[in-house]
Amino acid sequence: MRPSGRNPDQLREIKFTCGFTRHAEGSVLVEFGDTRVLCTASVDKSVPRFLKGKGEGWITAEYGMLPRSTHSRMGREASQGKQGGRTMEIQRLIGRSLRAAVDLKALGEHTITIDCDVLQADGGTRTAAITGGFVALSLAVNTMLKKKLIKTNPLHGQVASVSVGIYNGIPVLDLDYAEDSSAETDMNVVMNDGSAFIEIQGTAEGHAFKKSELDAMLTLAEHGISILLEKQRTAIDDHK
Amino acid sequence: MRPSGRNPDQLREIKFTCGFTRHAEGSVLVEFGDTRVLCTASVDKSVPRFLKGKGEGWITAEYGMLPRSTHSRMGREASQGKQGGRTMEIQRLIGRSLRAAVDLKALGEHTITIDCDVLQADGGTRTAAITGGFVALSLAVNTMLKKKLIKTNPLHGQVASVSVGIYNGIPVLDLDYAEDSSAETDMNVVMNDGSAFIEIQGTAEGHAFKKSELDAMLTLAEHGISILLEKQRTAIDDHK
Amino acid sequence: MRPSGRNPDQLREIKFTCGFTRHAEGSVLVEFGDTRVLCTASVDKSVPRFLKGKGEGWITAEYGMLPRSTHSRMGREASQGKQGGRTMEIQRLIGRSLRAAVDLKALGEHTITIDCDVLQADGGTRTAAITGGFVALSLAVNTMLKKKLIKTNPLHGQVASVSVGIYNGIPVLDLDYAEDSSAETDMNVVMNDGSAFIEIQGTAEGHAFKKSELDAMLTLAEHGISILLEKQRTAIDDHK
Amino acid sequence: MRPSGRNPDQLREIKFTCGFTRHAEGSVLVEFGDTRVLCTASVDKSVPRFLKGKGEGWITAEYGMLPRSTHSRMGREASQGKQGGRTMEIQRLIGRSLRAAVDLKALGEHTITIDCDVLQADGGTRTAAITGGFVALSLAVNTMLKKKLIKTNPLHGQVASVSVGIYNGIPVLDLDYAEDSSAETDMNVVMNDGSAFIEIQGTAEGHAFKKSELDAMLTLAEHGISILLEKQRTAIDDHK
Amino acid sequence: MRPSGRNPDQLREIKFTCGFTRHAEGSVLVEFGDTRVLCTASVDKSVPRFLKGKGEGWITAEYGMLPRSTHSRMGREASQGKQGGRTMEIQRLIGRSLRAAVDLKALGEHTITIDCDVLQADGGTRTAAITGGFVALSLAVNTMLKKKLIKTNPLHGQVASVSVGIYNGIPVLDLDYAEDSSAETDMNVVMNDGSAFIEIQGTAEGHAFKKSELDAMLTLAEHGISILLEKQRTAIDDHK
Amino acid sequence: MRPSGRNPDQLREIKFTCGFTRHAEGSVLVEFGDTRVLCTASVDKSVPRFLKGKGEGWITAEYGMLPRSTHSRMGREASQGKQGGRTMEIQRLIGRSLRAAVDLKALGEHTITIDCDVLQADGGTRTAAITGGFVALSLAVNTMLKKKLIKTNPLHGQVASVSVGIYNGIPVLDLDYAEDSSAETDMNVVMNDGSAFIEIQGTAEGHAFKKSELDAMLTLAEHGISILLEKQRTAIDDHK
Repeated sequence: MRPSGRNPDQLREIKFTCGFTRHAEGSVLVEFGDTRVLCTASVDKSVPRFLKGKGEGWITAEYGMLPRSTHSRMGREASQGKQGGRTMEIQRLIGRSLRAAVDLKALGEHTITIDCDVLQADGGTRTAAITGGFVALSLAVNTMLKKKLIKTNPLHGQVASVSVGIYNGIPVLDLDYAEDSSAETDMNVVMNDGSAFIEIQGTAEGHAFKKSELDAMLTLAEHGISILLEKQRTAIDDHK
Repeated sequence: MRPSGRNPDQLREIKFTCGFTRHAEGSVLVEFGDTRVLCTASVDKSVPRFLKGKGEGWITAEYGMLPRSTHSRMGREASQGKQGGRTMEIQRLIGRSLRAAVDLKALGEHTITIDCDVLQADGGTRTAAITGGFVALSLAVNTMLKKKLIKTNPLHGQVASVSVGIYNGIPVLDLDYAEDSSAETDMNVVMNDGSAFIEIQGTAEGHAFKKSELDAMLTLAEHGISILLEKQRTAIDDHK
Repeated sequence: MRPSGRNPDQLREIKFTCGFTRHAEGSVLVEFGDTRVLCTASVDKSVPRFLKGKGEGWITAEYGMLPRSTHSRMGREASQGKQGGRTMEIQRLIGRSLRAAVDLKALGEHTITIDCDVLQADGGTRTAAITGGFVALSLAVNTMLKKKLIKTNPLHGQVASVSVGIYNGIPVLDLDYAEDSSAETDMNVVMNDGSAFIEIQGTAEGHAFKKSELDAMLTLAEHGISILLEKQRTAIDDHK
Repeated sequence: MRPSGRNPDQLREIKFTCGFTRHAEGSVLVEFGDTRVLCTASVDKSVPRFLKGKGEGWITAEYGMLPRSTHSRMGREASQGKQGGRTMEIQRLIGRSLRAAVDLKALGEHTITIDCDVLQADGGTRTAAITGGFVALSLAVNTMLKKKLIKTNPLHGQVASVSVGIYNGIPVLDLDYAEDSSAETDMNVVMNDGSAFIEIQGTAEGHAFKKSELDAMLTLAEHGISILLEKQRTAIDDHK
Repeated sequence: MRPSGRNPDQLREIKFTCGFTRHAEGSVLVEFGDTRVLCTASVDKSVPRFLKGKGEGWITAEYGMLPRSTHSRMGREASQGKQGGRTMEIQRLIGRSLRAAVDLKALGEHTITIDCDVLQADGGTRTAAITGGFVALSLAVNTMLKKKLIKTNPLHGQVASVSVGIYNGIPVLDLDYAEDSSAETDMNVVMNDGSAFIEIQGTAEGHAFKKSELDAMLTLAEHGISILLEKQRTAIDDHK
Repeated sequence: MRPSGRNPDQLREIKFTCGFTRHAEGSVLVEFGDTRVLCTASVDKSVPRFLKGKGEGWITAEYGMLPRSTHSRMGREASQGKQGGRTMEIQRLIGRSLRAAVDLKALGEHTITIDCDVLQADGGTRTAAITGGFVALSLAVNTMLKKKLIKTNPLHGQVASVSVGIYNGIPVLDLDYAEDSSAETDMNVVMNDGSAFIEIQGTAEGHAFKKSELDAMLTLAEHGISILLEKQRTAIDDHK
């Protein structure tokens, strides 16, 4: 039995509130159950130095947790003077994952920065951030098209992400904090709308996992991601 | 005429959403029109070194803006490796203001940290943070009383804050961004429920201000703060 | 009775030693009693990035305390790797206050940096820094005029500053450390030579202050500042 | 054809030079072809704060590249004042992977720090670091047993790692720099000697990968790791 | 001919103003011509961790230059977030030099911190800092003896320092900035009152120097230091 | 008797392994007994800002110790966020010493960075780094000549370095760690192949040293350096 009473292959309640804040070119509050992440996409007419003059754009991401998004208060990274290793790891993952959906040439010399800020954490913040980050990115692209900053849509597909794991010996989908903190294996999967993998990051916490367990987890992930991709489309279309 | 069409002595729409996030002992989303600040109060059973063994508690505050809470994206302080001078100035102000309402002896050896994170900025974020911070603090104190962490209520009054300024030659209350960015004088006033001043910070931006202008601004501030104090009481009572 | 035996409306002995060091375009040691601050004004033929190509200049300030300028030794900010919040707050205040006296267009594309370094502290270092900083700035402007770096004097007035407070229930002028550390209210006032306010920063330490107390303090401040402005003029004229 | 002329399932030449430096409790220079990483294991009689008093030990890792281990010189992280995101990500991976082989209770209150410093890079430095890090760890454990710091061997298995990828459409084992920099997919796999997975980190660089490609890569990885495990055993035994 | 018209073996005018600031246990403004360094000695009843419980004391030094102590303004190290290599090198030198005159056992568990802050620079700031630092240290030791913090004088000798160099082919004593910036060789010598060397740091700037040149420079240094030692004694005695 | 059984005027075994790593334009592993330093020279087609457009080149050095190059593990400077004072002091010394052998005009607008990384420490790492650094520099210059990046050899001589000291009252050459940690006096000497001094840095650890002791140490240093210069020439010639 899962603590939440969900079936092993059941996602938490998924919700996208597009336009949650008004300044960003794209903005969405994504909720995976009690995990709530504010994703904004900001368009800038410049590119990092290594792309200057190449006629290509860039997608980058930053991630943060509000100090009391968690059960006990964490120190604020800004006042500690640096981002921790976990933060860096996650924001690199978000950036890589979203770039996989973008034709950077078609984006022209623009940088889109995806900020993913966790307002409330209950497990799976990085997968929610990728899934919501794609929505924010799409909204920003729509804004760019409307403003004629670009001529063609640089998105050549969708990207979504979910966690899977082995909890009490059973493969489960979309772990919440109660499951995450005691799972034997934890895996974050990023896929596109062509049923192909963009990132797989699996970690054995308690015991190493067998190939059969991996296969079971990936099947769950594909199932969950197909639902997330559908919900992304609905959210983006409804906001037009 | 004010850009928003408000009267000179009119506040923006004020809204408190208590319990906006669930982990903190006290949590509120405060809105002054389009300015939205998430304030959480976190209780910790320890005190800073300079208070160790004195039987007293401490109230401290931290302030941050999400990178795209503003019109154009600001760099994230965590990735820049330090908090800017404006951030430090504001969080010191919030901490001092809220401590003025607390009997630190009655708090016992607890630290309450007030985190004020700006989700969306439209002028007056620091006054919203103080006003909302007091609500979060009150909610946390109520939690402590319920959990019997303390015996008596350490709050000996209320604290609220509003900005006033001279805009187009006329003293106005609660400036939004459009006014703030072109005001000749900008003043942040913090008062308690005894109609006395806790902090006054006035800055001449365009021209120096006369004593008569100061008096007019303070009258507006007192008026605005009396309304805010009333709304704080309602919000706190409704959340019990 | 004040610890120093002064009357409530009496400044400490004020002294300006112009040309205290020889490299800076403007240099003065300002003394408010035992508080001694070395202020230098350095002229640079460049401007910050946000002013590039606008034909305007800039005034900025930095503030520091020598580690043993205080009763007990403070850590050196350079070795701690960052400036504290108080330092940032003060240097921002000095810069804003002095810019209020300058026509930045007339300054042309020059930056003048005012360094205020406290050699010995006995309360009121920020007000001494502003008052001395204005003298250093004036001397630097005179140097620029002599060297024909600028054609017209960009200073359109004078700026001086003093602290006032409520000590033992009585409003007093120019608090020294003994008073400052136990005052109920502490207020720093910056005014120009037109009797108008440039900055007011008042903080209730012990109890919140009433409007009548505020008025009494501001009257004292205006009195003290009129004397400081007179002494500034004498010092600058004597150094020509 | 692979640039090196190797077969798709062929490792580079693997070499362990145990005792490469003399101060560390365990030290090995590991070579995967031209990739050379110096791994040392340092034993300390203390544990991180979160483990104090629990009777358990800890394994942690740090990773660095010498500035000119790479084709063009990289900035030195020590002089840049911080470790980059890639460095943090890798050292967290090394630590997690090696902890999976250790019974931390049996280690007692000791911390073993694995330093992995890349002397020369030619692709696959993180997998070489994990594979060599395990050897350094084993040597240090042998030293501890000899010095009677611990009574029983806390290692309950072996850990090794290799990269696999899709290069020119073909799954290949143990990518060198020439392959790595143009591979479509890059995956780092960490396994134990029970043929189970400890970490899988796969990234689509050029195109997303299908489940069938994933399976092919994992088969290659298992093959390569079985050889690495054998070579680890020989190296450790020969050094006794 | 030296730019200042001095003879090759002539010191600049040397001046010690003891008690220049009033909070420190020892304070002196030392002047070597136009080079002016404020040296304070601060006594603290604690020792660094590596000396805890050994019954010994410690002497340490910190060094800084005010931003406009120099011909053109230098960035403030506190705002740059770190001390430069030159600063660290100098403060390590001052600390080592002064420790050579102290019986750390006799000092008991006290730390004396010597802060050397350059108010005005004209060459030779580090030698002035050491020479003045010894005076500040002596004054602090006298204060400690008077306050009965220690029973016996822990100073077993005097320490002074001067620079020597080859300027226009001729060995000269106590280089000022005009000489220093174009000298072929620059050497800082620290000696005690037993005519023995504590530190020698010689650097060939233009051409490497011969043993005969070294000998000539050391003879000059010994001559200069004997005068400085005499002036130190007078200054310390006069301040009693 | 020396702990190693060497005669007072005897160097440790000296070894240069040229081409130790393959990416750098010049690379050598230098060994002074058990002290092993990897020196690489990296050529870059740019110069620091202060040399832009002057047609001159620059030589700079960086120094680091691997965390477990020492008897007990030292913290990694990259993870501590800054280089310590000792590191900065040493890399400045290496840079100055090597620049003394180079005609920067003949180098053209190139920067050569010498990285000296200590793999294993047993005393005298800085003198080994200078001596090996010169070899790496020479190899890089040879590479530049071969690639026709420069026309003439900018090296106008050789530079080598050794330590000398007073150990148990006797002057000795090339101290190892056992001697270094208990020597009364420690001196690092840098000389060129014209028997002239480039740097002398002598420090009295236990007692101040007399002129006669200084002379004895310098004689030893000259003897040792003449051997090192010979070995440098052989190593460089053999690598052609």
